[in-house]
Amino acid sequence: MKIAVLGTGVVGKSLAGKLASIGHDVALGTRDPAATLARTATGNFGDPPVADLVKAQPSISVRTFADAAAHGEVAILATGGGVTIAAAEAAGSGLDGKIVMDLSNPLDFSKGFPPTLSVCNDDSLGEQVQRALPNAKVVKTLNTVNVSVMTDPGALPGGADAHTLFVCGDDADAKARVTALLGEWFGWRDVLDLGDITTARGTEMYLPLWLRMMGAVGKPGFNIKVVR
Amino acid sequence: MKIAVLGTGVVGKSLAGKLASIGHDVALGTRDPAATLARTATGNFGDPPVADLVKAQPSISVRTFADAAAHGEVAILATGGGVTIAAAEAAGSGLDGKIVMDLSNPLDFSKGFPPTLSVCNDDSLGEQVQRALPNAKVVKTLNTVNVSVMTDPGALPGGADAHTLFVCGDDADAKARVTALLGEWFGWRDVLDLGDITTARGTEMYLPLWLRMMGAVGKPGFNIKVVR
Repeated sequence: MKIAVLGTGVVGKSLAGKLASIGHDVALGTRDPAATLARTATGNFGDPPVADLVKAQPSISVRTFADAAAHGEVAILATGGGVTIAAAEAAGSGLDGKIVMDLSNPLDFSKGFPPTLSVCNDDSLGEQVQRALPNAKVVKTLNTVNVSVMTDPGALPGGADAHTLFVCGDDADAKARVTALLGEWFGWRDVLDLGDITTARGTEMYLPLWLRMMGAVGKPGFNIKVVR
Repeated sequence: MKIAVLGTGVVGKSLAGKLASIGHDVALGTRDPAATLARTATGNFGDPPVADLVKAQPSISVRTFADAAAHGEVAILATGGGVTIAAAEAAGSGLDGKIVMDLSNPLDFSKGFPPTLSVCNDDSLGEQVQRALPNAKVVKTLNTVNVSVMTDPGALPGGADAHTLFVCGDDADAKARVTALLGEWFGWRDVLDLGDITTARGTEMYLPLWLRMMGAVGKPGFNIKVVR
């Protein structure tokens, strides 16, 4: 299917590569495609520059946020939290009526590590995205796991049944569709619907715990199982 | 052993009852013991009044916060978040040099349900307790589970090995001692040390997710396993 992946950081590149590798028609959205393709530096996590990605997987097209959004049947918003709303606004009406999976977290690194949250408690980035895109069906998901877990949940001990992912959003059909896509694309099996988009506050405010757990277990490749 | 349980809500009463039932000498701390013992109303969670608890388990003594603190070799701070610091200050120097397990969460119900947090992001109630009790060894723990899970982790599916509890605090020996006590008293087996007392921000900011998960799974008797 045609999928817009908005954001060219490690998450956007990894998802684009994985989705293209299983046959999807991926448009990678960025502010300035020419500038993005001109970059040659390896990313902070050892991720290759976008130019190398599209050389290896030529079916991935690099487009403006608006063009990528218009191309996709569904969109994945995978930018850093600080530019999420700007990216959503740039994508704009190209996302009308479509499912938008919002993966971003409002992490503020300006005071060092671990980051604080730039929005929390009585609002969330997920709600802000839904307000910025009132005609889209925003589903907050995948923001509670590292990118290595996002695309290969079966690799954790016990496999994909042994840990849990969340979906939050106002549209029940969109959440059901996203749950199915997460299974088809990546193999997610235990996906828990937390409720409307305000429940994104819960999954975003979990990040401070996630960061401390990462420190305690010594790696980003872990997740939680809701034992119920 | 001599244990101070500070707070006479459902958590304090349940812990006091459990600890007394396995032979410990429990002092239940409250602001005004006579007023506490005079109450006859059942609590919001069907929990019996303190007078009924001590009638059933006469080894539990009801004392002022300061007297209970002085009695305990270790203390459990189990008040509602809104009165945690007042209780800690009332306990005062009776806690000097002792381990204080802080179970409280800074939940603000003033705007309805689900509650927001009265402190978060760049501070935590755990840190506030440690600042209020600079000579105590504060260990944040048990605040991420319902009271039914606190005292009987083995009752969840898969037993006590199947889910995780956290400890946060500045004193490594105190965390190790608390980890051992949680095993002896209640049967906790997977206890993860997150780091210093600032990591309490993580476990307290998890509460908004916990509240939404409770709604999704339809019961408070659940927990998370850190799959790593």
